[in-house]
Amino acid sequence: MTEKTDYLKETIRHFDITRNNPVPLVESMRHMAFSARDLARAADIYDRMLADKDCGIMLCLAGSLISAGLKKVFADLVRDNLVDVIVATGANIVDQDFFEALGFLHYQAAELLKTGIDDSKLRELAIDRIYDTLIDEDQLRICDDTTRKIADSLEPRPYSSREFIREMGAYLDRQSNKPEDSIVYEAYRAKIPIICPAFSDCSAGFGLVAHQAARGSEPKVSMDSAKDFLELTRIKMMSEQTGLFMIGGGVPKNFAQDVTVAAEILGAEVPMHKYAIQITVADVRDGALSSSTLHEASSWGKVDTVYEQMVYAEATLAVPLIAGYAWHKGSWKNRPRRQYNLKLDADQGGG
Amino acid sequence: MTEKTDYLKETIRHFDITRNNPVPLVESMRHMAFSARDLARAADIYDRMLADKDCGIMLCLAGSLISAGLKKVFADLVRDNLVDVIVATGANIVDQDFFEALGFLHYQAAELLKTGIDDSKLRELAIDRIYDTLIDEDQLRICDDTTRKIADSLEPRPYSSREFIREMGAYLDRQSNKPEDSIVYEAYRAKIPIICPAFSDCSAGFGLVAHQAARGSEPKVSMDSAKDFLELTRIKMMSEQTGLFMIGGGVPKNFAQDVTVAAEILGAEVPMHKYAIQITVADVRDGALSSSTLHEASSWGKVDTVYEQMVYAEATLAVPLIAGYAWHKGSWKNRPRRQYNLKLDADQGGG
Amino acid sequence: MTEKTDYLKETIRHFDITRNNPVPLVESMRHMAFSARDLARAADIYDRMLADKDCGIMLCLAGSLISAGLKKVFADLVRDNLVDVIVATGANIVDQDFFEALGFLHYQAAELLKTGIDDSKLRELAIDRIYDTLIDEDQLRICDDTTRKIADSLEPRPYSSREFIREMGAYLDRQSNKPEDSIVYEAYRAKIPIICPAFSDCSAGFGLVAHQAARGSEPKVSMDSAKDFLELTRIKMMSEQTGLFMIGGGVPKNFAQDVTVAAEILGAEVPMHKYAIQITVADVRDGALSSSTLHEASSWGKVDTVYEQMVYAEATLAVPLIAGYAWHKGSWKNRPRRQYNLKLDADQGGG
Amino acid sequence: MTEKTDYLKETIRHFDITRNNPVPLVESMRHMAFSARDLARAADIYDRMLADKDCGIMLCLAGSLISAGLKKVFADLVRDNLVDVIVATGANIVDQDFFEALGFLHYQAAELLKTGIDDSKLRELAIDRIYDTLIDEDQLRICDDTTRKIADSLEPRPYSSREFIREMGAYLDRQSNKPEDSIVYEAYRAKIPIICPAFSDCSAGFGLVAHQAARGSEPKVSMDSAKDFLELTRIKMMSEQTGLFMIGGGVPKNFAQDVTVAAEILGAEVPMHKYAIQITVADVRDGALSSSTLHEASSWGKVDTVYEQMVYAEATLAVPLIAGYAWHKGSWKNRPRRQYNLKLDADQGGG
Repeated sequence: MTEKTDYLKETIRHFDITRNNPVPLVESMRHMAFSARDLARAADIYDRMLADKDCGIMLCLAGSLISAGLKKVFADLVRDNLVDVIVATGANIVDQDFFEALGFLHYQAAELLKTGIDDSKLRELAIDRIYDTLIDEDQLRICDDTTRKIADSLEPRPYSSREFIREMGAYLDRQSNKPEDSIVYEAYRAKIPIICPAFSDCSAGFGLVAHQAARGSEPKVSMDSAKDFLELTRIKMMSEQTGLFMIGGGVPKNFAQDVTVAAEILGAEVPMHKYAIQITVADVRDGALSSSTLHEASSWGKVDTVYEQMVYAEATLAVPLIAGYAWHKGSWKNRPRRQYNLKLDADQGGG
Repeated sequence: MTEKTDYLKETIRHFDITRNNPVPLVESMRHMAFSARDLARAADIYDRMLADKDCGIMLCLAGSLISAGLKKVFADLVRDNLVDVIVATGANIVDQDFFEALGFLHYQAAELLKTGIDDSKLRELAIDRIYDTLIDEDQLRICDDTTRKIADSLEPRPYSSREFIREMGAYLDRQSNKPEDSIVYEAYRAKIPIICPAFSDCSAGFGLVAHQAARGSEPKVSMDSAKDFLELTRIKMMSEQTGLFMIGGGVPKNFAQDVTVAAEILGAEVPMHKYAIQITVADVRDGALSSSTLHEASSWGKVDTVYEQMVYAEATLAVPLIAGYAWHKGSWKNRPRRQYNLKLDADQGGG
Repeated sequence: MTEKTDYLKETIRHFDITRNNPVPLVESMRHMAFSARDLARAADIYDRMLADKDCGIMLCLAGSLISAGLKKVFADLVRDNLVDVIVATGANIVDQDFFEALGFLHYQAAELLKTGIDDSKLRELAIDRIYDTLIDEDQLRICDDTTRKIADSLEPRPYSSREFIREMGAYLDRQSNKPEDSIVYEAYRAKIPIICPAFSDCSAGFGLVAHQAARGSEPKVSMDSAKDFLELTRIKMMSEQTGLFMIGGGVPKNFAQDVTVAAEILGAEVPMHKYAIQITVADVRDGALSSSTLHEASSWGKVDTVYEQMVYAEATLAVPLIAGYAWHKGSWKNRPRRQYNLKLDADQGGG
Repeated sequence: MTEKTDYLKETIRHFDITRNNPVPLVESMRHMAFSARDLARAADIYDRMLADKDCGIMLCLAGSLISAGLKKVFADLVRDNLVDVIVATGANIVDQDFFEALGFLHYQAAELLKTGIDDSKLRELAIDRIYDTLIDEDQLRICDDTTRKIADSLEPRPYSSREFIREMGAYLDRQSNKPEDSIVYEAYRAKIPIICPAFSDCSAGFGLVAHQAARGSEPKVSMDSAKDFLELTRIKMMSEQTGLFMIGGGVPKNFAQDVTVAAEILGAEVPMHKYAIQITVADVRDGALSSSTLHEASSWGKVDTVYEQMVYAEATLAVPLIAGYAWHKGSWKNRPRRQYNLKLDADQGGG
């Protein structure tokens, strides 16, 4: 009889930019054509953002990046101060990063499973599939439930996702075994905000639904997505210049681009994002935001057009090269730490 | 000197499924290969959903659909009872549908503008571009501000996006000139819920940020995305069977698929979505949810695999054919009206 | 035990543009955005080509179009004089059109087969698969062998693919049962050249390899691809203006675009192609010719830029609408028949 | 006034796999998901082919690879015996490799030119554009004319493209300045066949058209594409096992896959291709051969399914990693040199 362990054997192991120096490779790609040249130019723009002392950097994450082996890349960017705020899908932050921080793992699916032919068997065994990656659904339910417990423990009021995710970081900090390379935990320690504008659309959503259903008409925790937007707008207003490092599109891209307009509406005069790079496989021709060019964003007054570059590539190939390039170039070594969490708390008289 | 009106000339006009009968065309496509056959099968599955008296239908909207000329299609689906709940990006509902309901229009961009070469000139003239479509940004600011006024007028407490969008419908209903073919307005009248799980990520976000910033530490309206999830889960639990008609992917797709799992967590035994069709140009190979196959969703216990069909096509081509097919087949004529808004209110002792 | 007939049940049936009038549908799409508007513009440009009495029209076919159900569309374009020369992949002309003209059929594969899980079983049963379509390989071997017999019957010398394909038409004409809706046969009767620049890369290649191997060092038929290019260049030189209707990219697109340059090299002053439309799913960003924009072709002096339109869509969806639109508009009704085969023969003192 | 030299400044410089060791990078990607894992697996399969002493390796090239900076990669594969036969589009071999061997260069286009806005100016200046790369058209005309001169110098008879391209290599060998890193020249020296099944569809086509037009009814050189197929089939029959390293799809992919069937038709019992990897950005869903899965090819009896891997990535990113991995692993160091040119000549009693 087939068992869970027959499928969950080979784990996903996370790429380590600190041990792979792609600088010569990327430098060589600069002189080629097509995606290689685009990638080299994007890597160069990221390095410029890091060298620009006035620039706050927003990292936007969409797509299944953490489960695909990119967790340590982003954890290193947070730890070593190559990013100042993260805007992400809930899946990356909760279902995948926090999930692994709780001690669980992602697994490689056998080639054949990509065709979908074993999906009903996986269903029976409570294994979830993301293309070529497998997850133990029972463990995911524990992750859901942990977010419920965190919600239960909080003062009932509206929270921004940043506030809730910081509580998840605090939860991890209270454990005796500290998680290794967790984005949530490293951001908590570095006082770097993580914002998930569609926070209920993930494992935490399940926890929060359970929390709210149990509370009934009693006071309860609610997730205020307007506060998310207000906080990211305040971060924009606190920053002399800003740069976007976007992986995938979706809500994180839109949200991060929109803050320049929101700041204007609040009466602040802020510049457009000075730098912007995006890695995506999306197609420009359907008018969806995920794939809209950064040039188009300039018509909206969101992104300046001098230092912008789209890279049409899948993230697992492009992120190790771009992030690795910037890490090994070392321009980040003298960057000030912005610790926006402290400033947002000060703004609000505490979180 | 170039002026705004030099660019904003040709308006987008919305496709009318009631005046174009594609049934013979789609029937012929059934016997071909590739996307034509897939499209015919998807149209057939939508017709089956409509003929199934037990099936509540969730319409998921992502991508710039309303600005692309599909507003009347969805308004007709709402008006004629071919859909029971809408899960959408905020852009479709607020920036585009509500925007037009306020009397504003979208415009066709000249071919040359797609290249991006006039984007800085557009910026100067306060014209926003979505690929081949233009928007008067000054009008969009009025749309933002109208959502602020609505927020200002409400009792300060956490709201689901459904509750807020219903207030937008009520606002339109109070105008002397009722809007034509507005999804927000037609859904308001038909008591059909519209849920935007990432509601702050749109024009309404700007209005809400202005509202919250003005209120400071005073009581204020907040947007509870957890309540969004809870309400859509309740809709799932109220429905014997459910079917998904998804256009694009993103948060709406994920959110709508997830409710089967959320219902389980609340202790309810609900079946997977019995029917599911998706129109998308996204690529299956990057593991993003937008493009994940409906088959893959079955490993998560979300979607059954008997009546599911992906159609890899751009929405402006596929939606008129699929929605038009179902409308002209007429299986919807004897469907019960579900009016989930009434049931959700009853659940909660009023909204 | 599984048998061939368990798989080969549902046949592909060819779309009939003469019985589906998409004019109102396409007219409505003109006022939308994205692919719908592009498609309407392409349909309009094709109609313009047909109305322009000076314009010779080249139809380029790449991708599995005939097996997908588009055979009758192209046969009708040939029969009713909506096209003057065809440049195609060998697969479309020999493996698929001539194959069906010999009395064989294509079959719909069951959904599950798309995943590839039955491919080894198909192999055992001598069934070939094209994504969602099946072919009886034994019948394909008969098609190969028929081309061998035709080669055996010809005077041994170098042939252009046009000359060979005309012989295939003559072969069909000698049969007692004339084929229905065969492109090869209709083109033969209408004296319309069909050119396959990579002619050995198809079923005919198998026949020709067998012919040449059997002849050894004896005189044999050879396929002169340079003559193909020369003949298409002469057709360009015979035409006052030219228009391209391209489906897919590949060698046919490149070849047809290149003749303007080749004509120059032969000392002729010819205009660029005045009209050009292309239907493709290819991606512009890898620099391959299949996906290169028609605008880019203008830098090469191949295609003029006033009447050109790319349509990013799969052919089974777009061809019925574009070809159907032009057929029902009727601008072709007064077009002169160019019968380029006669002119090429006259040039050469017989073929 | 704008001049040619204003555009043609920055040259494309070719990637050097011998100076960039991606082995640790690729090894790390093996444990990730999506394209990274696929790429690592493909690299591993290429290394296996090289370690398999019985395996003849066919390199298939489609898309603008040489102009994109990959010339030296393939030249090194030829020089160091990592490939035994090349099947390519004419553009890669003649317009790009032979062109550079004649002393000409490719240039980087400025970002803005990708939009196409300067295409008419480029046209006036006789500059051709491939997406982000520029070519001096006057130099390309010299390349065309050189192929004409070679044709003029040959005995008038039908030639395979391999025979003609070998003459191009001999032409280069007669020059006092030997070209650096030319695929045509290195293959000539290593007696490695290069086959372009659609040989007239390139710069050589222009030369051959000029040659044939000038000869009129006199004896002339013709290009026998059937002989191309026969020769590649013979190579398959000479090889115990075969492996395919395919970049892009198109005619080269189809041609190389088809030889297993052609060998059968000639009465030989040959195994399917034992190994096959393909790098492509093409989309599987339109049924075109370029994008058809290698699994699908197994239904045709072309490719075995144990060691096959598609990598959905753009070639400039993937080729340096895959080819570099195999080169640095060194399994090729003890491979026998197959020198198929010698064997084909022996077969035919001279070329």
